[in-house]
Amino acid sequence: MQNSTQQEDLSRLTLLGREAKPSKSLETFPNRHPDRDYVVTMETDEFTCVCPMTGQPDFAHLQIRYIPDASILESKSLKLYLWSYRNEGIFHEHVTNVILEDLIAVLSPRWCKVTAHFGVRGGISITVEAEYTKPGAAQP
Amino acid sequence: MQNSTQQEDLSRLTLLGREAKPSKSLETFPNRHPDRDYVVTMETDEFTCVCPMTGQPDFAHLQIRYIPDASILESKSLKLYLWSYRNEGIFHEHVTNVILEDLIAVLSPRWCKVTAHFGVRGGISITVEAEYTKPGAAQP
Amino acid sequence: MQNSTQQEDLSRLTLLGREAKPSKSLETFPNRHPDRDYVVTMETDEFTCVCPMTGQPDFAHLQIRYIPDASILESKSLKLYLWSYRNEGIFHEHVTNVILEDLIAVLSPRWCKVTAHFGVRGGISITVEAEYTKPGAAQP
Amino acid sequence: MQNSTQQEDLSRLTLLGREAKPSKSLETFPNRHPDRDYVVTMETDEFTCVCPMTGQPDFAHLQIRYIPDASILESKSLKLYLWSYRNEGIFHEHVTNVILEDLIAVLSPRWCKVTAHFGVRGGISITVEAEYTKPGAAQP
Amino acid sequence: MQNSTQQEDLSRLTLLGREAKPSKSLETFPNRHPDRDYVVTMETDEFTCVCPMTGQPDFAHLQIRYIPDASILESKSLKLYLWSYRNEGIFHEHVTNVILEDLIAVLSPRWCKVTAHFGVRGGISITVEAEYTKPGAAQP
Amino acid sequence: MQNSTQQEDLSRLTLLGREAKPSKSLETFPNRHPDRDYVVTMETDEFTCVCPMTGQPDFAHLQIRYIPDASILESKSLKLYLWSYRNEGIFHEHVTNVILEDLIAVLSPRWCKVTAHFGVRGGISITVEAEYTKPGAAQP
Amino acid sequence: MQNSTQQEDLSRLTLLGREAKPSKSLETFPNRHPDRDYVVTMETDEFTCVCPMTGQPDFAHLQIRYIPDASILESKSLKLYLWSYRNEGIFHEHVTNVILEDLIAVLSPRWCKVTAHFGVRGGISITVEAEYTKPGAAQP
Amino acid sequence: MQNSTQQEDLSRLTLLGREAKPSKSLETFPNRHPDRDYVVTMETDEFTCVCPMTGQPDFAHLQIRYIPDASILESKSLKLYLWSYRNEGIFHEHVTNVILEDLIAVLSPRWCKVTAHFGVRGGISITVEAEYTKPGAAQP
Amino acid sequence: MQNSTQQEDLSRLTLLGREAKPSKSLETFPNRHPDRDYVVTMETDEFTCVCPMTGQPDFAHLQIRYIPDASILESKSLKLYLWSYRNEGIFHEHVTNVILEDLIAVLSPRWCKVTAHFGVRGGISITVEAEYTKPGAAQP
Amino acid sequence: MQNSTQQEDLSRLTLLGREAKPSKSLETFPNRHPDRDYVVTMETDEFTCVCPMTGQPDFAHLQIRYIPDASILESKSLKLYLWSYRNEGIFHEHVTNVILEDLIAVLSPRWCKVTAHFGVRGGISITVEAEYTKPGAAQP
Ligand SMILES: [Ca+2]
Ligand SMILES: [Ca+2]
Ligand SMILES: [Ca+2]
Ligand SMILES: [Ca+2]
Ligand SMILES: [Ca+2]
Ligand SMILES: [Ca+2]
Ligand SMILES: [Ca+2]
Ligand SMILES: [Ca+2]
Ligand SMILES: [Ca+2]
Ligand SMILES: [Ca+2]
Ligand SMILES: [Ca+2]
Ligand SMILES: [Ca+2]
Ligand SMILES: [Ca+2]
Ligand SMILES: [Ca+2]
Ligand SMILES: [Ca+2]
Ligand SMILES: [Ca+2]
Repeated sequence: MQNSTQQEDLSRLTLLGREAKPSKSLETFPNRHPDRDYVVTMETDEFTCVCPMTGQPDFAHLQIRYIPDASILESKSLKLYLWSYRNEGIFHEHVTNVILEDLIAVLSPRWCKVTAHFGVRGGISITVEAEYTKPGAAQP
Repeated sequence: MQNSTQQEDLSRLTLLGREAKPSKSLETFPNRHPDRDYVVTMETDEFTCVCPMTGQPDFAHLQIRYIPDASILESKSLKLYLWSYRNEGIFHEHVTNVILEDLIAVLSPRWCKVTAHFGVRGGISITVEAEYTKPGAAQP
Repeated sequence: MQNSTQQEDLSRLTLLGREAKPSKSLETFPNRHPDRDYVVTMETDEFTCVCPMTGQPDFAHLQIRYIPDASILESKSLKLYLWSYRNEGIFHEHVTNVILEDLIAVLSPRWCKVTAHFGVRGGISITVEAEYTKPGAAQP
Repeated sequence: MQNSTQQEDLSRLTLLGREAKPSKSLETFPNRHPDRDYVVTMETDEFTCVCPMTGQPDFAHLQIRYIPDASILESKSLKLYLWSYRNEGIFHEHVTNVILEDLIAVLSPRWCKVTAHFGVRGGISITVEAEYTKPGAAQP
Repeated sequence: MQNSTQQEDLSRLTLLGREAKPSKSLETFPNRHPDRDYVVTMETDEFTCVCPMTGQPDFAHLQIRYIPDASILESKSLKLYLWSYRNEGIFHEHVTNVILEDLIAVLSPRWCKVTAHFGVRGGISITVEAEYTKPGAAQP
Repeated sequence: MQNSTQQEDLSRLTLLGREAKPSKSLETFPNRHPDRDYVVTMETDEFTCVCPMTGQPDFAHLQIRYIPDASILESKSLKLYLWSYRNEGIFHEHVTNVILEDLIAVLSPRWCKVTAHFGVRGGISITVEAEYTKPGAAQP
Repeated sequence: MQNSTQQEDLSRLTLLGREAKPSKSLETFPNRHPDRDYVVTMETDEFTCVCPMTGQPDFAHLQIRYIPDASILESKSLKLYLWSYRNEGIFHEHVTNVILEDLIAVLSPRWCKVTAHFGVRGGISITVEAEYTKPGAAQP
Repeated sequence: MQNSTQQEDLSRLTLLGREAKPSKSLETFPNRHPDRDYVVTMETDEFTCVCPMTGQPDFAHLQIRYIPDASILESKSLKLYLWSYRNEGIFHEHVTNVILEDLIAVLSPRWCKVTAHFGVRGGISITVEAEYTKPGAAQP
Repeated sequence: MQNSTQQEDLSRLTLLGREAKPSKSLETFPNRHPDRDYVVTMETDEFTCVCPMTGQPDFAHLQIRYIPDASILESKSLKLYLWSYRNEGIFHEHVTNVILEDLIAVLSPRWCKVTAHFGVRGGISITVEAEYTKPGAAQP
Repeated sequence: MQNSTQQEDLSRLTLLGREAKPSKSLETFPNRHPDRDYVVTMETDEFTCVCPMTGQPDFAHLQIRYIPDASILESKSLKLYLWSYRNEGIFHEHVTNVILEDLIAVLSPRWCKVTAHFGVRGGISITVEAEYTKPGAAQP
C-alpha cells in the first residue's frame, strides 16, 4: 500500500529505539496523506520546567494538536525534546509559545495549537493556549 | 499446559458460535432512508496493530462516524476487518487514514470521520482524526 | 392563567392513568406557547428490540428532542409506543429513522432529532442520530 | 466605587433576611454594569410541582440564565417564587414557559433561558428548554 | 413498512452469525484451577422482564459473582438464559433469588452473589442483592 | 415455580395500579425466599418535607436498605408514604429515625438502614444514617 | 408523635432566623431517638482561616460526623462558629483538633470525627482526620 | 532566546517571594509573543467576600481568561488582589464585573472573561460571566 | 544508600533497553526492603489473547498486585510476557490463573493477586480475580 | 488556647517563607494534640525522579499519610525534600521505601504509609504502597 507506512519512512528516524538523552532536535517522518487535512493530537502528563524567579520546579499537562503538511512529528523525539526543559527557567506563558514556535519550525504544519495546564501555585492554576495557522490553510 | 484451556473443555459447549477469521472485506446492507442525512457512529475499545519500527503491539480506541448514502456498514464485518490489523506494522497517522479510505471505497458515504486514540508510549498518547466529505454533501 | 395547563388539555389523553399495553398510537396535548421555539427532550435507558438476522435482543439508550408546533408529546403514550418494539426485528439504523418518522407524523414538529445508542456487539457499539427540520423552521 | 454594591441597592429588597413564605413576587436590585452584556446563571436542585392529571409530585432541576438590562434578580425572592409551585398542577412544558414569562415581566432582560430537567417517570425523563431574546439584543 | 428492515436486506450479509433462541439451560466447562478460590464476575446492562402486576417491562443491570468449584459458567449460555426472562412476569426480589438458585443448581459454586439494579419507577429505584455460601466454603 | 411471584402475592396490594394520594400506610407482599438473608435497596431523589422552624421546604436523597424477614416492601406504597411528608414540619435527624421506625413496624425486617442526604443550607449539607438490627439477626 | 420534632425543641434555638455574626457558641436541640446509635454528617466547602506563619488565607472542605447522645448540633450555629475562624491564624493540624474538641464539649457525642481537606500549597494538599469515641460507646 | 523569559522581565515584579498582604495592586510582566493571539486561563477555588446585606461570607470558584496584549498578569499579585475582597461587602454580579474592570485597567488585554461560580444559598447557586473585547480585537 | 537502587541490581536485567520480542521469561531485581511487607501494583489496559473456541481476539484490563519477598518484577519483561499471549487460545478464567502461577514461580511473593477485566461479549463482561498467599505470610 | 498554634511552634521552622532550594532536610513543629491518634495526609501530583537504568525521567503522584507522635511535618520542607529526587536515579519500589524511612527518622510517627503512583511505561503503570507501624501503636 502506497498510502501506508513504508520502509523508507523509517530512514529519517535516528532516535526511535536508541539510547535516550534530552535533545532540542525534533524528528519527523513523511506524511503519506497530504491530500487530506487531518488532525494529530499528542498529550502528556509529564512535563516539568523551573520558575525563572524562584528556581522551583513547575509541572504541566501538555497537549499538542496539528494538521500535518509534508511531515509528521515522531513521538520519541518529542519526549526527548520535552525532557530538555527539565532544568530550564521559563515562565508558563513563554514556554508554551516557544514550544509552538519550535513545532512550526520543524513541521511547517498547516495548523498547530499548544495547550499547557500548570499545577496550582498560591491557590491558582494557569493554562496557556497558543495557536498558529499557516496562511491560506483551514483550521480544524 | 495442563492448567490452561484444553481441547476437551470445548466439547461440552454447544451454544458458543462458529469459526470466524480476519478479513479485509467490509459488507453492507441497503440504506432504507436515503432521503435523510443521518449519522451512524461505531465505536470500539478493541483495536490493535504493531509498531512498524519496533514490532511491538499498539492499542487504540477507534471511533467511526459516517452519513450513509446508499449503503450501511454491517458491524460484524467491521469487527473482522479491524481484526486484520492485528499483525500489521503501521504508524498511527497512516492506519487512521487507510481505514478511512477503505470505508470510503465500500460505503461511498456522504461524510465520514475516523478517530483513533492510541495508548501512552514514552508518557505521550496520540490521537488521529481524519475526515472525508463527498463533493456537494453536507457535514453533520 | 391561559398559558398554563388547562382542564381541556387533559381531554385528549386516553392512556395516562389507564391500564397499559404496547401501542403504536402516540398521543399529544396542545402547546400553550406556540409563539416560542422551545426544545423538549425525552430520554430513556429502557428500549429493546430484536436483531432481524439472529432474533436476539438489542438494547438502546434513546433520546428524542423536538421543537413543538401545535402539539406536545404525552410521555406515557411514548412509553407504550417504545414498548411495541419489544418483539420487532429491525436494524439499528432503520428503527431510529422509523421512530423519527412516526414522531413527525403525529407531532408535526418544527424540528426533531432521535438518537439511539445501542450496546456493544462484537466489541463495537453503534449510535444512530436522525434529524428533521420543517421547511422554513429554525434548528435549536 | 460607583460600579459596586451601594447602600441604596438594598432599599428595594423586602424579602432578604425576613420571614419566608411562598410568593409569586420576584424582586430585583439595580444593575451597576448595564454597559456590558454579561450572563447570570441561577441553578437549583429543589423544585417541585404536581402532575395536573394525577396530582402526584414532580421534581426538577432548574437552571435560569439571563443577560440583565436594568435589573438583577434577587435570589431569595426567586427561592420563594419557586416555592409557590409546590402545590400547583401543571405540565412540564407549560411550567417552564410560564417561569420564563414571569422572569421576562419582572427583569425585562436582554436575553433569558429557562431549563427544567424533570426526573424519570415510566422510564422516561423530560427536559424543557425555553429561551427569550429582547428585540435587538445579542445572545451569549 | 417499506422504510424498515426487509428480508432482502439480509441476503447480502454472509458473516452475521447463526440463529439463537432463549433457553433455561446454562452450560459449563471444567475449572482447571480447583485448588484455588478465585472469583469470576459477569455483568450485563441488558436484562429485562415484566411486572407481574401490570405486565409492563422492567429493566435491570445484573451482576453475577461466584467462586467456582468444579465448573465454570459459559457466557453465551448465560446470555440465552437471561433472554428467557424477557416475557416472564416476576417481582424484582423474586427474580434475583431465582437466578441465584439456578446458578447454584448448575454450578454448585463455593460462593455466589447476584445483584440486580432495577431502573426508577415512581421516582424509586430498587436493587436486590442475594448471596449463597456452600457449607464449609469461604467468602471472598 | 414456588419460589417466584405467585397470583396470591398480588392480593394484599391495594395501591399498585390505583389512583394515588399521600398515605401513611405501607404495603407488603410475601417473601418467597425467607431461608436466605438478602438485601433490598430502595432509593429516591424525590423526598421533600418542611423546616419546623421556618416552614421552608427541605429536599433530600433517600436510601432505604433492608434484609426482609416474612415481608417485602411494595414500592408504590413507599412512594405514597414519602409523599405524605410533603407538608410535614420536621428536623432532618428526626424524620430519618421516624421513617426507620415505620419501616420496622410494617416489615419487621431482620436488618434495616435509612440514609437521608439533605441539600445545602447556609453552605452546609446534612446526611443522617439510622440503622436497626433485629435481635439475633446478622447485618449485611 | 413523641419521637418527632416538637414545639419545645425550638425554644432553645436563639440563632436560627436572627441576624448573623461570627460566634464561638454552638447550639443544640434534643435528640428524640437516644435509644439508637445513628450518624449525622455535616459537610461544607466553605471554611477559611489564615496561616499563622505568613498570615495568608487557607481554604478547606470540612466534614463533621457524629453519633449524638442527648443533643443534636443545630446547623446555623455551626455556620456562625466556622465563620469565627475567618481571621484566626492556626495550622491545619491544630484547627482540626480544636474543632473536634469544641464539638465534644457542646455535644458530648458518643462518637465524633472531623475531616479537613486543605487546598494545594507548594503543589501539596493536606488532609487532617481527628476522631473521638466516648468511653464505652461504639464506633459506626 | 529573545522570545523566552529574560532577566529584565523579573525587575518589575515586587511581590513575588516577598512578605504577603492583601493588595489592590495587580502586577504584570512583558508579553514576549505579542504577535500572536493566545489565551491565558487562571483559576482558583479560593475566593471569598461577604454579603452586603447580611455580612455573611460568600465563597466562589473564579476563572479568569484573557488574550494578552503587551502585558501578562503575574499570579502572586493576583492572589493578593483576590485576598483583598475577603472583608468586602459586595453582590455576586457586581464583584465579577469589578474584577473584570480592574483586569482591563492593568492588562489592557485584547480580550478578557471573568467567571465566578458562587456556592449554594437557599438551595440556589449563582454563576456570573462577564466578558470584554478590545475594539478591533478577535475573541478566542 | 544501601537501601536504594544499586549498580549490581541492574546486572540481572537482560531485557530493559534491548530490542523487544514476545517472551515467556519474567525478570526480577533484588528487593532492598525485605524487612517490610509492602505492595506493588502493576496495571495495563493492553492485554489481548484469543478465544479458544472461535479464534477471535479478546481484550482485557489487567491488574497485578503483590507483596515482594526477595525479588521485584521488572516491568519491561512483564510487557514482553503479556505480549506472548497475543496469539494464544485460552479462556478468561484459565489465563488469569496461569499468569498468577507464572508470577508465583518467578517471584515467590509473600502475596499476589491477578485481576483481569475482559470486554463485553454478547452484552456480558467478565472479570476474573485470582489470589495467592504464601504459607505464614500476611495479606495486605 | 494551649491546644492551638503558638508563637513558639514557629521557631523551629527555617524554610517556610525563605528562599527555596532542594534539600534532604525535613522540618517539623510540635504536635499540640499528642493524646489523640489522628491522621494527616499530604498529597502531590508533582514528583519526579529518573530511571537508574536509562536515565529517563519518571513522574509520580505521591501520597503520605501518618499518625503524628510528638512532631508534625512542615509542608514546605517536604516540598524541598521531594525536589531533591529530581535528578536521582532510583527504582520505583526503592524510592517509595526510602521516603518512608526518611519520614520515620524525622517524625518518629505512630503510623505512616507512603503511596507512589508512577505513570505508564510500556503500557504499564506501577503503584507502590509501603507502610510502617510503631511497636504498640494502632493503625488508622
Ligand atoms: Ca491519501
Ligand atoms: Ca425515509
Ligand atoms: Ca406564550
Ligand atoms: Ca443502561
Ligand atoms: Ca461598568
Ligand atoms: Ca492450579
Ligand atoms: Ca428460597
Ligand atoms: Ca437531585
Ligand atoms: Ca426512638
Ligand atoms: Ca471548593
Ligand atoms: Ca513570538
Ligand atoms: Ca528497609
Ligand atoms: Ca481500554
Ligand atoms: Ca488533645
Ligand atoms: Ca487538644
Ligand atoms: Ca498529573
